[in-house]
Amino acid sequence: MSRIRIGITQGDTNGIGYEIIIKAFAHPEMLEICTPVVYGNEKVAHYHRQPLEADLENAPNFVVVGDAAEARDGQLNLLNTSVEECTVEYGKCSAAAGRQAQAALNAAFNDWKQGKIDAVVTAPICKAAIHSDSFPYAGHTEYFEKMTESEGLMILCNEQMRVALATTHLPVKDIAAAIDAELLEKKIRLLHTTLVRDFCISSPRIAVLALNPHCGENGNIGSEEAEIIAPCIEELRKNSIPCFGPYAADAFFGEGFYRQFDAVLAMYHDQGLAPFKALGMESGVNYTAGLPIVRTSPAHGTAFDIAGQGKASADSMRQAIYAAIDIVRHRTTHDTASANPLPFSERRIERERLPIHDPRPKA
Amino acid sequence: MSRIRIGITQGDTNGIGYEIIIKAFAHPEMLEICTPVVYGNEKVAHYHRQPLEADLENAPNFVVVGDAAEARDGQLNLLNTSVEECTVEYGKCSAAAGRQAQAALNAAFNDWKQGKIDAVVTAPICKAAIHSDSFPYAGHTEYFEKMTESEGLMILCNEQMRVALATTHLPVKDIAAAIDAELLEKKIRLLHTTLVRDFCISSPRIAVLALNPHCGENGNIGSEEAEIIAPCIEELRKNSIPCFGPYAADAFFGEGFYRQFDAVLAMYHDQGLAPFKALGMESGVNYTAGLPIVRTSPAHGTAFDIAGQGKASADSMRQAIYAAIDIVRHRTTHDTASANPLPFSERRIERERLPIHDPRPKA
Repeated sequence: MSRIRIGITQGDTNGIGYEIIIKAFAHPEMLEICTPVVYGNEKVAHYHRQPLEADLENAPNFVVVGDAAEARDGQLNLLNTSVEECTVEYGKCSAAAGRQAQAALNAAFNDWKQGKIDAVVTAPICKAAIHSDSFPYAGHTEYFEKMTESEGLMILCNEQMRVALATTHLPVKDIAAAIDAELLEKKIRLLHTTLVRDFCISSPRIAVLALNPHCGENGNIGSEEAEIIAPCIEELRKNSIPCFGPYAADAFFGEGFYRQFDAVLAMYHDQGLAPFKALGMESGVNYTAGLPIVRTSPAHGTAFDIAGQGKASADSMRQAIYAAIDIVRHRTTHDTASANPLPFSERRIERERLPIHDPRPKA
Repeated sequence: MSRIRIGITQGDTNGIGYEIIIKAFAHPEMLEICTPVVYGNEKVAHYHRQPLEADLENAPNFVVVGDAAEARDGQLNLLNTSVEECTVEYGKCSAAAGRQAQAALNAAFNDWKQGKIDAVVTAPICKAAIHSDSFPYAGHTEYFEKMTESEGLMILCNEQMRVALATTHLPVKDIAAAIDAELLEKKIRLLHTTLVRDFCISSPRIAVLALNPHCGENGNIGSEEAEIIAPCIEELRKNSIPCFGPYAADAFFGEGFYRQFDAVLAMYHDQGLAPFKALGMESGVNYTAGLPIVRTSPAHGTAFDIAGQGKASADSMRQAIYAAIDIVRHRTTHDTASANPLPFSERRIERERLPIHDPRPKA
């Protein structure tokens, strides 16, 4: 079994992208579990690496390759993707840095399409810097959705929980109108498939949050729970999707209910992400589920305020790489195992009708 | 200086109210810092106390008094407030238990009005049980607002932070429309006054959260930040109210920005309370600011699921009592100190114009 090839895009060149890439691979075992290909700019990479050398015992050197197919195991491969010179201006939101980020992203996506890499981990971009006519997307998620012509599901994961979002970057005034049975069913089914296929959980349990405070308090604080969310959960459970709720968001996080579920579907951005990040941002991973490409990223941004200061933590980047490797492996295993199902058999139906054997001794 | 008298309402008699009251006062020092008067039912109190006796070394006995004015220091005074017999049915939502809760509440409020107690700490009620024509309120907060004819501000506090809510029990679909400059100014000013007068912070710093995800991302995800929240903050700051923001909620809690402020104003219930409770529910205190009466309560509910099992933590109740004592003291000190301000003086203006002296030696 060959090592999984992880494409890593440099992100905004004025942020902490290179710092967290270098710090992540300063742990030598990282090069034993995958073969990285950094999509970026050789000069910029070295510029970021230099100040880190003194404090970082095992700061790896970048090894420039001409093509991702030439990337070798055991080294931090770098593919030059920029066509223009670029100066690093720590913490500055600039269109030049945005173009660098975009070039890396496009190159990585194309290499993934050609099978040269197995997954993409994206370092953070500055949305204002990268935004242009040729990059009209709200962010990475929307970019990959468009490029793969599929609909994704934003999932934030850390060691404690997985939080998926039913709606993502919507103004609060538009949230309630966006929550309907069709959307919820789609998101819950996608979350279920993702947990089975990408996270290797055979019978995942999904919690669904309420839209309104106190779960709508019997209709006194909103009707969406009774009219939309609860019926949708019930219907899906009848169809063998083990989902539960709706749960009032504050009690759900306050009482630690999330520990009893494999994932939780929040109705909107802040409802899911404020408590998720409050509980431990350092190692959070953002995973765009539902796409043919496996794409993860750290859960933080460009951190312009500390760029170039050597203060950034690489925990989240390292976890994003771990997650990408795991998901690629799980998907391959799952798809191989379910590629040739046995033909439908009457015996199976018979078997399913049998009462479940209770192994306990009779009283 | 006499001990502060804390009225404690029993809350729903089928919940964990008595358990947390008894456990809170099982620490003998609690009776040294205040004189409690429990508003409730003698028989019910003893019924709840009995199973706790074995495990609780210092479980205090209730001492029945005929009037709050007769309450004595150093003992757990109890005032009978119920007019009907009452059976405890652990975990059951019943109208009888609701009536017990309401009778205790009314008696405590009347005694506060007559100056017999200094503050009220409320044990949790079941809203469905207590709701009736004579108690049409959404909860304690609304009850005390109505009884004192004032407008309150819901603040949740623990050792790490204070979270106030601009809107409380609103459906998500109505939140955006409720956020206007008038409301925000009122809430921020009230929060500021509360921090100065009730929490004894002479120059409090207030953070204000954004309404929309990513702080509206330059108008791409909602316009309320630019049109309402930011101008309101700026205007108030010109008027010597040190408030800052708006901050994106997820980063605010994720990056721990809350540690840099004395309080944060969240725009709606789940935005503030989900991360607050995620970060430590056990010792959370709910304080209704802005009222003439000082009223605190534990931040949790009746916990019907564990009622009568001896599992409830009294941390939140104990903190609610501490908070009530502190607030009463701070208010008294503040109001005494500012009762007779010196007349306006020209010299003060002169003084304020003087350059600030820098005590460091010149280079």
